[in-house]
Amino acid sequence: MLLESLRVEVLEANLEIVRRGLVMYTFGNASGFSPAEGLMAIKPSGVPFEKLRPEDMVVTDLDGKIVEGSLRPSSDVDTHLEIYRHFPEVKGVVHTHSTYAVSWAQAKREIPCFGTTHADYFYASVPVTEPLSDEEIQSKYELNTGKAIIRRFEGIDPLTRPGVLVSSHGPFAWGASPSKAAMNAVLLEEIARMASITVGLNPALTAIGQALHDEHFLRKHGPGATYGQN
Amino acid sequence: MLLESLRVEVLEANLEIVRRGLVMYTFGNASGFSPAEGLMAIKPSGVPFEKLRPEDMVVTDLDGKIVEGSLRPSSDVDTHLEIYRHFPEVKGVVHTHSTYAVSWAQAKREIPCFGTTHADYFYASVPVTEPLSDEEIQSKYELNTGKAIIRRFEGIDPLTRPGVLVSSHGPFAWGASPSKAAMNAVLLEEIARMASITVGLNPALTAIGQALHDEHFLRKHGPGATYGQN
Amino acid sequence: MLLESLRVEVLEANLEIVRRGLVMYTFGNASGFSPAEGLMAIKPSGVPFEKLRPEDMVVTDLDGKIVEGSLRPSSDVDTHLEIYRHFPEVKGVVHTHSTYAVSWAQAKREIPCFGTTHADYFYASVPVTEPLSDEEIQSKYELNTGKAIIRRFEGIDPLTRPGVLVSSHGPFAWGASPSKAAMNAVLLEEIARMASITVGLNPALTAIGQALHDEHFLRKHGPGATYGQN
Amino acid sequence: MLLESLRVEVLEANLEIVRRGLVMYTFGNASGFSPAEGLMAIKPSGVPFEKLRPEDMVVTDLDGKIVEGSLRPSSDVDTHLEIYRHFPEVKGVVHTHSTYAVSWAQAKREIPCFGTTHADYFYASVPVTEPLSDEEIQSKYELNTGKAIIRRFEGIDPLTRPGVLVSSHGPFAWGASPSKAAMNAVLLEEIARMASITVGLNPALTAIGQALHDEHFLRKHGPGATYGQN
Repeated sequence: MLLESLRVEVLEANLEIVRRGLVMYTFGNASGFSPAEGLMAIKPSGVPFEKLRPEDMVVTDLDGKIVEGSLRPSSDVDTHLEIYRHFPEVKGVVHTHSTYAVSWAQAKREIPCFGTTHADYFYASVPVTEPLSDEEIQSKYELNTGKAIIRRFEGIDPLTRPGVLVSSHGPFAWGASPSKAAMNAVLLEEIARMASITVGLNPALTAIGQALHDEHFLRKHGPGATYGQN
Repeated sequence: MLLESLRVEVLEANLEIVRRGLVMYTFGNASGFSPAEGLMAIKPSGVPFEKLRPEDMVVTDLDGKIVEGSLRPSSDVDTHLEIYRHFPEVKGVVHTHSTYAVSWAQAKREIPCFGTTHADYFYASVPVTEPLSDEEIQSKYELNTGKAIIRRFEGIDPLTRPGVLVSSHGPFAWGASPSKAAMNAVLLEEIARMASITVGLNPALTAIGQALHDEHFLRKHGPGATYGQN
Repeated sequence: MLLESLRVEVLEANLEIVRRGLVMYTFGNASGFSPAEGLMAIKPSGVPFEKLRPEDMVVTDLDGKIVEGSLRPSSDVDTHLEIYRHFPEVKGVVHTHSTYAVSWAQAKREIPCFGTTHADYFYASVPVTEPLSDEEIQSKYELNTGKAIIRRFEGIDPLTRPGVLVSSHGPFAWGASPSKAAMNAVLLEEIARMASITVGLNPALTAIGQALHDEHFLRKHGPGATYGQN
Repeated sequence: MLLESLRVEVLEANLEIVRRGLVMYTFGNASGFSPAEGLMAIKPSGVPFEKLRPEDMVVTDLDGKIVEGSLRPSSDVDTHLEIYRHFPEVKGVVHTHSTYAVSWAQAKREIPCFGTTHADYFYASVPVTEPLSDEEIQSKYELNTGKAIIRRFEGIDPLTRPGVLVSSHGPFAWGASPSKAAMNAVLLEEIARMASITVGLNPALTAIGQALHDEHFLRKHGPGATYGQN
């Protein structure tokens, strides 16, 4: 079987977003990408999470051709693939319909960086994609969703802002592994929740200054990171 | 015993709305309808959910005559029956007092379709019924509640919008089976929750465009559905 | 031991408000009153709920004299007693610091009856007491809290509105038994939660009409009640 | 091993903030201080809570020199130390990113005392620190965070207001022991939650009067306390 260990990681990321309360029914999906093989493993479409086994993951190449697996892949498979094609550092992608991140996506508002919880994981606002045109929706919708994400990240290192709000839809998060993508999806939901309470308390609030943003993001990420054990 | 398997399904729908956190005490009720027999099975009134057994379900005909069962049916029995009499595709009905759906019903606001979570299950806004007149309240209140629902759905296929907010009261959801009705009640609550956060973030927001609505609803419903396995 | 069965009921009401999520640490207290003996059993002050046993309940007469028990009664004992002295139909009282009911009490706003969940249990708004004067706070504070409740209910049958918001403090609920008082405390919290979401969605909303209020309250309460099993 | 019993208490405070829902992943940290030895025990940085053992706690002196322990201390160690150096009555400090307290900190708003739940534990508003200058952020950030807290408490007895909101960051709470610090962190989160609902219901609301504040705070704290069992 191809990608044996990646399948386990992808399954685990799918289960993690359920355990963390980000998923209702079969909403949401996680995938992982192996650059060595050029292959992705992704959750099958519409299968209850509690029945998922590593062998149920669907393996495709970067063009979306199924190379192993008898089930249909997640309906969002083309969005995942577009992300892997353009963000070479990304090896895990997670899509959810988590409540607060969806609400910001529906409101079509970026989430400004209001504090250090956000700054620890996103090195600027959480971006929102531009709405798709009717033509983009009516043909290759999932692919065009991916393209809108890539356009929004032009000039942005995707690991410095490991997630996005797809306008009128919801969040996609990613990372250097499926488990990091799942963690970023969880953090994005909490950042969105805190931000919605914050704007209720102070509607005119603007983002924190760059110095505080630098201090927090860079102590957890990059060559100068000091957080955690060695 | 009549409707043996439907009783089990109806019991299960009643328990599902409890497990999903939509029910407090004995609020809420689920029923199922069998077109073959022309009979409905419904939860008895005011019995704690944890004590319910299939044989406790009350079986009535479409006129509300009890044909099997020693307990009183749910006090909302006449609303359920009115729905079954007018919506032949509907074979399950669920009523709850879930927090966010009730809040929209109390606010007497339709829930506009703000995003794809909504569009996946409701093919337009979630409608609100007109308030009942004092006369409609004072005589045959539950039947008149059903009539208000039917009036609100004039010209609307009820399976494209599988639920309604009864003004100043709360949600009724339905579907092609009791379990689908329960699922729609759960989804309606989550849609209502997301929408209340969304309008807080963007009070002037309008509903999504038709193209996005079509794309999402039709990939999960109808002959062209592509979601899930085969 | 005095009031053996009432002690068990009072303990159970104390545990119920914990199980329902209305209580943090040792906040909140429940009591019960036996008209036959003219005695009240109440939770002791500041004892962790998980250690409470029936024999820990403190028994006092209507003047607050401890007739059985080695622990101090709840610090709110004088408020409970004032309620029992003036509301002869009341045989259980529950005080909590539940989140939403406290928030309305802090906001010093009555909770208007916005829908049938409210109308099923409160036959009008949930009232708020007048603030106490500094003198009333500085001497016999708990007794004066009770007096403010009694004043607010002048001309109101307390079983038609089984709870109150003490201004800047929080809810007291009551009923014909300790378990009914606990249930009313739970319902008041949910009514407060729904109402806070509702006013966010429709700030100008007014209370429902009397006909709907009558229909709901009277089908659950009083001689014409039709809800539940005979 | 140094500070054997304090290590257990500190571990327990770290676990308590997890059990109470204040902590996501490895966010948050608790410490304890022993005046007799002049030593602090603190959680190590970035270690999952479920793996923590008493021997993992890092012991430092008041200058931050590690005197026992092979792991790195929490990245917030210098903030904890600054608090112990200036608040001699404080023997436990807890930092969390709990949702509502963070939201007030992000909004840069003090939490006014809106009711008795607050008044029972904080003898005035919950203060917010001044924002740090860029220089204070770029050099010795954690120490400067502590200094901002100390400045904010000039002339304030820290045990009368056992917590603070660090501007754009989140809450630090403290107390006469690690367990009391953890309890104050939990209470601060609930106070923040109630206050955010309260201001939604009554945006113009001002703090309660001093007489009510005195009555509540002083019945739980200080020589005249009457709450609990002797």
